[in-house]
Amino acid sequence: MSLSRFLDLADLPRDEILDLLVLAERLQLHPEPAALAGKILGLVFLNPSLRTLASFQAGMARLGGNSFVITPGQGTWALETRLGVRMDGGAAEHIREGLPVLASYCDALGIRAFADGKDLAADLDEANFKAMAALVDKPLINLESAVNHPCQALADWKTLDDLAVAPRSRFVLSWVPHPRALPLAVPAAALHMAALRGHEVVVARPEGYALPSAIMDKARAAARISGGSVTETDDRAAAFAGAQVVYAKEWGSTSYYGDADADARLRADLGHWQVNERAFAPAASDCRLMHCLPVRRNVAVADEVLDGPRSVVLREAHNRLVVQMAVLHRLLA
Amino acid sequence: MSLSRFLDLADLPRDEILDLLVLAERLQLHPEPAALAGKILGLVFLNPSLRTLASFQAGMARLGGNSFVITPGQGTWALETRLGVRMDGGAAEHIREGLPVLASYCDALGIRAFADGKDLAADLDEANFKAMAALVDKPLINLESAVNHPCQALADWKTLDDLAVAPRSRFVLSWVPHPRALPLAVPAAALHMAALRGHEVVVARPEGYALPSAIMDKARAAARISGGSVTETDDRAAAFAGAQVVYAKEWGSTSYYGDADADARLRADLGHWQVNERAFAPAASDCRLMHCLPVRRNVAVADEVLDGPRSVVLREAHNRLVVQMAVLHRLLA
Amino acid sequence: MSLSRFLDLADLPRDEILDLLVLAERLQLHPEPAALAGKILGLVFLNPSLRTLASFQAGMARLGGNSFVITPGQGTWALETRLGVRMDGGAAEHIREGLPVLASYCDALGIRAFADGKDLAADLDEANFKAMAALVDKPLINLESAVNHPCQALADWKTLDDLAVAPRSRFVLSWVPHPRALPLAVPAAALHMAALRGHEVVVARPEGYALPSAIMDKARAAARISGGSVTETDDRAAAFAGAQVVYAKEWGSTSYYGDADADARLRADLGHWQVNERAFAPAASDCRLMHCLPVRRNVAVADEVLDGPRSVVLREAHNRLVVQMAVLHRLLA
Repeated sequence: MSLSRFLDLADLPRDEILDLLVLAERLQLHPEPAALAGKILGLVFLNPSLRTLASFQAGMARLGGNSFVITPGQGTWALETRLGVRMDGGAAEHIREGLPVLASYCDALGIRAFADGKDLAADLDEANFKAMAALVDKPLINLESAVNHPCQALADWKTLDDLAVAPRSRFVLSWVPHPRALPLAVPAAALHMAALRGHEVVVARPEGYALPSAIMDKARAAARISGGSVTETDDRAAAFAGAQVVYAKEWGSTSYYGDADADARLRADLGHWQVNERAFAPAASDCRLMHCLPVRRNVAVADEVLDGPRSVVLREAHNRLVVQMAVLHRLLA
Repeated sequence: MSLSRFLDLADLPRDEILDLLVLAERLQLHPEPAALAGKILGLVFLNPSLRTLASFQAGMARLGGNSFVITPGQGTWALETRLGVRMDGGAAEHIREGLPVLASYCDALGIRAFADGKDLAADLDEANFKAMAALVDKPLINLESAVNHPCQALADWKTLDDLAVAPRSRFVLSWVPHPRALPLAVPAAALHMAALRGHEVVVARPEGYALPSAIMDKARAAARISGGSVTETDDRAAAFAGAQVVYAKEWGSTSYYGDADADARLRADLGHWQVNERAFAPAASDCRLMHCLPVRRNVAVADEVLDGPRSVVLREAHNRLVVQMAVLHRLLA
Repeated sequence: MSLSRFLDLADLPRDEILDLLVLAERLQLHPEPAALAGKILGLVFLNPSLRTLASFQAGMARLGGNSFVITPGQGTWALETRLGVRMDGGAAEHIREGLPVLASYCDALGIRAFADGKDLAADLDEANFKAMAALVDKPLINLESAVNHPCQALADWKTLDDLAVAPRSRFVLSWVPHPRALPLAVPAAALHMAALRGHEVVVARPEGYALPSAIMDKARAAARISGGSVTETDDRAAAFAGAQVVYAKEWGSTSYYGDADADARLRADLGHWQVNERAFAPAASDCRLMHCLPVRRNVAVADEVLDGPRSVVLREAHNRLVVQMAVLHRLLA
């Protein structure tokens, strides 16, 4: 099996995902320090990063390859993404030139481009990322797009495997507070992953924060393949009952998508959605806390949980490196 | 043949340029992934970059070497360049320390330092770049200085070779609009390159934007070596007549050098200098469009041209990698 | 001998420091381009850098390894360092997650975190750096903390060795002017290093700038081991009498620590503490000028000294690379 793109876990047959996880495990046990000798990964970050930035550079190096990083607007020209526009503003370069040029310098390209957060339909359609992907004729990796983050999803799957969390167990995706409205990429990716792994998935979120039906439907389709299920509720205590995993995540209001003021009014009363130890009372005693990081301590999740035995957030982050090495190996070895 | 510096195409005998292009071709066909094993390139960017930043890192990696990037003012101290100054302002470090120190950490150094854009005579004399070059006792590469960009010029030469553009054919350097006054580095380098390759070169530019005589004279001296010619005009249609290549480029007014307001008044009426398909009517039917990138779409050049069959801008950009690997090989192998 | 951390020269037995210097010398004469093959160094810069940034990347590459750079707040989330805080401000990520995650991607981590400059006791205790170091379970390198800079100190020791400066000779740490109050890290590290090398050390500083007793006492303890001595004075001419080395360094008022206004008032009258040629009159004729760089020319040190034969600042900076390769070798080979 070889991959040509890694853009969405849903693009891969379930067996190929399992193969990737086997490969990740194999590379952990039997490193291949020369597998990607002479290969170059280009990394384009239109938004900030810590784990992705560091782990992809480290992963290429551990496989014998190399990488370069481009952060448009920081030492590099800001990039224009709109088609047909008269470029008399701040952006000096269009993606129609910038991306093919960068692709021509490397063997694979990774792109991070968060949601614009204004037009829900456009973001759900991945209009922006698709336009960029169409310009790249090399193996391409989605480093987080408007509504997807397949590297995070694969790392989370491996984390659940590492911890031997039973596929049929209850997995709660639980909305948590944040100072601002964040994108839907990680909630959508984690939801789909948990459904495809076969969990009894419950989305716990306040009124106004229901995940869009396109995202729910995609997860339900994955659940049908795996024998899992997907439901949603605004009753967090009910959701947590018997849960084996709580995946805490922040996202913006979908009822008022792109309206920061309305979102802020709504979230002003939702501080009690913070995940603390008390919230785990109805859950399984060994219920895990997952989060993709970065996490706002004592806003989204309380110190007591992050610093306690439930938290597996550091393992999730380390597994970013582990699974991405498998992805790079499949794309480039 | 070995090089010790790559600062200006005019420093090299014409035969050495041709040798570099042969080497570039050879490295494309027969990669040498260990040629620069253990070698380190330091890259100092006093101004933004995309192609140069990515292609030099990629080129070193493809030849088995490594590189580091320094962007003064971004994670690194801002650099003072003036001699004898009392350093009580924003810049914490002087180039008299910064550059020799960086040079002592690597095997070759690249420096990008755009024109100050205030004093034409100082910029034409490369006063700033010369002061920096004098501080570096390692192989040095000009990554674009006040009035030069030899890496771009060499990549453009290779592009013309790749496309089998006849050396005696008509090459038009055509001024195009931009929101701001840009430096003279690329127009000067492209003009000199085309003249040295032997083209019938015409500079088409509006009144107020004539290239300085030092730049025109240098190109004419190159034309004398190659049997080419260099003329200029403000009649764009006449210039394009029979042209085989149009090299579109933005630059600031030379009549009002360093006077942004006067330049802005002048360029307000020059939008029709944008290169669109109509402009090519008097040119050869297969006339090419070249541009160094980044390009302001629908300001400098219309989408229809950039997205059409004339455009070779992506090939030019890719050739940056190709020819720079030859330069690195000559400097370091 | 192998090291697990390189945080403070005072942590090492004197013999181990001498061994490191021997190793540095050996690696200069007999490079080991594959010693760290497959090894990855993570570099976290909470503050600007030039020498450290470039020399650690170059050093890893020269030993066959690789590195990645993280600059929180620049393309990466800003990091919160305070414990127990409600993270509703600008910092998106806590060091309690960020640092263990980065450590899990690499084989050794380097961290730069300057003094907060508000609470002298907290800075002297290295409260901030200790909190970070406690989170890292990999080999760790101090790239400059509140009151320490062991890489600079080791490079300076090697510089004195290179120049055959006699261990018993007079070494003056001389306060020099700067537009702002700078941290105590380099003065503290240079003072301790000179004392441990066995010099007759004199700290020359104006009233209001006495080094804290914790720093003086630590240096005196080192002097007792080596047979050197440590004194202080506000009579610069007396201090320079017979000096073999003048180590010029800027630092903020310790009498008004964290009070920028009071410090500014005090330093307004201290411009005559600049080191110029005249100041060397009472010193040994071949007295050296050392400085860690970056240096404010004609504020801290006059051009005539920096550009003259006394100055060894470039050798000090180059020795950063030389000794750090030995440290990396000990930590990782």
